[in-house]
Amino acid sequence: MVAAVIVTLMLIPQSLAYALLAGLPAEVGLYASIAPLLLYAIFGTSRVLAIGPVAIVSLMTAEAISKVAPLGTTEYWSAAFTLAFLSGIFLMALGALRAGFLANFLSHPVISGFISAAGILIATSQVKYILGLEVSGNNFISLISATVSDLMNTNIPTLSIGVSSLVFLYLVRVQLQSVLETVGMPQRSAILLTKTAPIVAIVVTTGVTIIANLASVGVATVGSVPQGLPPFTLPAFDKELWLNLSRSAVLISVIGFVESVSVSQTLAAKRRERIDPNQELIGLGTANVAAGLTGGYPVTGGFARSVVNFDAGARTPAAGALTAMGIALVALFLTPALYYLPKATLAATIIVAVLSLVDIPAFFKTWRYSKSDFIAMAATLLGTLMFGIESGVLTGVVLSLLLFLYRTSRPHCAVVGQVPGTEHFRNIHRHAVLTNPHIITLRVDESLYFANARFLEDKIFELITANSEAKHVILMCSAINAIDASALESMEAINLRLKDAGVCFHLSEVKGPVMDKLKLTSFLDDLTGEVFLSQFKAVQQIEAELNVHTLVISDPSQYD
Amino acid sequence: MVAAVIVTLMLIPQSLAYALLAGLPAEVGLYASIAPLLLYAIFGTSRVLAIGPVAIVSLMTAEAISKVAPLGTTEYWSAAFTLAFLSGIFLMALGALRAGFLANFLSHPVISGFISAAGILIATSQVKYILGLEVSGNNFISLISATVSDLMNTNIPTLSIGVSSLVFLYLVRVQLQSVLETVGMPQRSAILLTKTAPIVAIVVTTGVTIIANLASVGVATVGSVPQGLPPFTLPAFDKELWLNLSRSAVLISVIGFVESVSVSQTLAAKRRERIDPNQELIGLGTANVAAGLTGGYPVTGGFARSVVNFDAGARTPAAGALTAMGIALVALFLTPALYYLPKATLAATIIVAVLSLVDIPAFFKTWRYSKSDFIAMAATLLGTLMFGIESGVLTGVVLSLLLFLYRTSRPHCAVVGQVPGTEHFRNIHRHAVLTNPHIITLRVDESLYFANARFLEDKIFELITANSEAKHVILMCSAINAIDASALESMEAINLRLKDAGVCFHLSEVKGPVMDKLKLTSFLDDLTGEVFLSQFKAVQQIEAELNVHTLVISDPSQYD
Repeated sequence: MVAAVIVTLMLIPQSLAYALLAGLPAEVGLYASIAPLLLYAIFGTSRVLAIGPVAIVSLMTAEAISKVAPLGTTEYWSAAFTLAFLSGIFLMALGALRAGFLANFLSHPVISGFISAAGILIATSQVKYILGLEVSGNNFISLISATVSDLMNTNIPTLSIGVSSLVFLYLVRVQLQSVLETVGMPQRSAILLTKTAPIVAIVVTTGVTIIANLASVGVATVGSVPQGLPPFTLPAFDKELWLNLSRSAVLISVIGFVESVSVSQTLAAKRRERIDPNQELIGLGTANVAAGLTGGYPVTGGFARSVVNFDAGARTPAAGALTAMGIALVALFLTPALYYLPKATLAATIIVAVLSLVDIPAFFKTWRYSKSDFIAMAATLLGTLMFGIESGVLTGVVLSLLLFLYRTSRPHCAVVGQVPGTEHFRNIHRHAVLTNPHIITLRVDESLYFANARFLEDKIFELITANSEAKHVILMCSAINAIDASALESMEAINLRLKDAGVCFHLSEVKGPVMDKLKLTSFLDDLTGEVFLSQFKAVQQIEAELNVHTLVISDPSQYD
Repeated sequence: MVAAVIVTLMLIPQSLAYALLAGLPAEVGLYASIAPLLLYAIFGTSRVLAIGPVAIVSLMTAEAISKVAPLGTTEYWSAAFTLAFLSGIFLMALGALRAGFLANFLSHPVISGFISAAGILIATSQVKYILGLEVSGNNFISLISATVSDLMNTNIPTLSIGVSSLVFLYLVRVQLQSVLETVGMPQRSAILLTKTAPIVAIVVTTGVTIIANLASVGVATVGSVPQGLPPFTLPAFDKELWLNLSRSAVLISVIGFVESVSVSQTLAAKRRERIDPNQELIGLGTANVAAGLTGGYPVTGGFARSVVNFDAGARTPAAGALTAMGIALVALFLTPALYYLPKATLAATIIVAVLSLVDIPAFFKTWRYSKSDFIAMAATLLGTLMFGIESGVLTGVVLSLLLFLYRTSRPHCAVVGQVPGTEHFRNIHRHAVLTNPHIITLRVDESLYFANARFLEDKIFELITANSEAKHVILMCSAINAIDASALESMEAINLRLKDAGVCFHLSEVKGPVMDKLKLTSFLDDLTGEVFLSQFKAVQQIEAELNVHTLVISDPSQYD
């Protein structure tokens, strides 16, 4: 109950604000916060996930439907709930096919780059409401330049409301909790009270607007919001519209799912509960279909509200159902009170909420850890800012896959020798180890598959052309988890070519599952050498056969 | 010299036949066999690779240019040499960028499936010449049905020439070498003599056609072939044409390069020589630019002729230059003799040559070894037969990448326990090993990256929800060759969530390069557990701390 009341108080301003962010009338945000919550309570697996409109999905909705219908028309609204419906069907289909793993191909750097970019885009798009301007732009650059060139038309009363809301909300977010704790309030209550601050901003600024009659001096307000429960709406069954919206529906579904599932998994783990991602897909899917049938727009699980649900102790899905009832009551009775709510206040709510999405340190951290991950992250950020969300995310996904393939196509390889006095074999470039000029051992630190099969061929022939004394080549397979058909053919080619060159080809430390597959082929019969259980046994036996022990100590410094 | 003469004798019928296969006049095949060979002799690295028209690239050329120009027109020819020019520029660019590794993304099953399909397509497309029909079709199905529905128009004299050429060439290919060896000829001479059989078929059938005046009863012949050296031609500098041809040029370049480089590497290895793939790209690129500037069409290294070059003892690139001179002499003086050469003979040459490309056993072999490789192979074969070469190859490449990603996104994982009396740890499902109910050890047999990071999270939480007694989780990293930024975040999330659940998270057997990267982050500081050098030390130390040795022997049979 406590959880439901607090989440309802958070959801009222958020649902109104995010609906405006999506370019929709404010009441659509309320509609999207009723039926979807009820359906998720039935079909979802998380006990604390708070479904409803969220900032990023609202921005994506705006981008998608502004391409197919003009802002402010009934077609625009219709496209919004059709999009929710399509997205819901797609999510349910993914869940039915148990294809939730597909979301894993969105790498963390791509998601992180995308979320930061979305935060910047959303905050930028709200600046006009704070300034009281009417400008528009499709991307970051055009938004900024349109806003700057229109700066002299700034409406001072709007700016006052906007800036004071911003300052109030920012201070509440940063300071209120510790202040309340200093005056003796328990930590949990302090956190929850802090979360309800936006409703205070709304009540106060609406009051000021009414009393000072600010609407007459140009302060834009939400205006008349129809009273009543959500209507029953039928998605537009228009083939061309569906085709135009399908790509956006897929992307919104996947992004919404990733956001939602990572929130619910984090919270579930704290109680040693488990989330079934495929059941989550069904839950989110039905929620979106419900949004599509009740005049809403795409919804997903929001991070901030879910954490509040968790902290306030929501133990059953009933919390979601109670929140839905709270919002239904607002839609039934309180919408006239929203008439004088300034849009600038809602914009301030959004800006303060999304600025926490922009994670600059993550960029530095990724840069330090992995340059290729950083490239994918930066490309997603820049792509999203310059060309929009869909292009940005697609660029990031494709780039991160290509970089992964590139990395695995040039695996780390080491020629190894025996560490004196042990059975260990280490890289000759890093350690002073014993090698035999007639035996070359190569360790490949990657599974062998088509993209690196030829690399291995090249590597081995580079080695034998450089070492004319070599009579035996051992491939140390301790890090090879799989060998696909292409790599098998390469191994066969290596074996044949080494045979032509008078060199024996051996394997060592082959893993069980890899060996099982090799046994299905004629490779092991054709192999000129042997398969050894351990690298030590391999060298021991071959040296005994060669009857040569002219060992050489490698000098790692010569390779520096 | 010997090599050059034999290759010239092979190249005459092949270049004429492949030009017809590409829908081009016969002389274009000769033009493509002069300048490109000279240029490759200068810029290529292989001493034995025989450049010139080849069957598959000819088919691909036909598919590409028939989309942009009508068959039999000057525009069609112009599109052909423009395509060669574009393909040459692209190959040189790849070589300059040292991007030869890109060809590795064509997996062996895809190449194999594609080559078999191309063999079937090419043979099918030649049946009409054997029957003396004039039919056309864009894919396998339409070709077959057009040919069958036109069967009653079969020209009997053409059929006689075609079938007898087919039988003669087939018998020569299968039998002649062993017959010659039986009568005492040395093996090498027998092989080389066998290779020149097509020229015999050409001389004989041309003679018969002249003597019996078969042209008057409807036997189609090559007709007048202009006498003289190749013309200098300027590629059509037409932006739209370039755009239309660019995708085909890329694909022809890559396929040609893969075919060429695998031939030259196989042969080079026999002499312990090395091929530099990037220099090969430059060599092939200049050869194709030369083809574009001298009225030819795309060329690459052919398998059969290169092997002959090798067997005949070509030791320097001069063999290629001499072959070019031989073909130039034919173009200058012998083209009138080709007037009465029946097209059916050339078709028979092609059919016998390409049937060896169709490798049915490879499909069975791949099926047995790896189902996912088989899927990529079969999709490429069917895609190529049904929708054409470009769609078929692209389907295969994309599918094999997706299957690889799918495999690595669900890596093999094993909960391991100690083999009694040893320091080894093995899968509890396969071996009777010792485990401690308070310690779970998971070994993941794959590098950790974005596509499998969440899989690991799920796996670990599945394990700790199923084992409520667990107080320690050890991740055994012996098969983890890399951890990317997404996987690092997952590891951080796992650490935090395990901490919330009161479980310690340890790592064991982390590789050097992976450890180096982890040290750049705060992960090791935040880790609730330790990083152990070996799995044995990990269990030893944790058990000592727990002071609990309630070991349980796993029973592999219970998991069957």
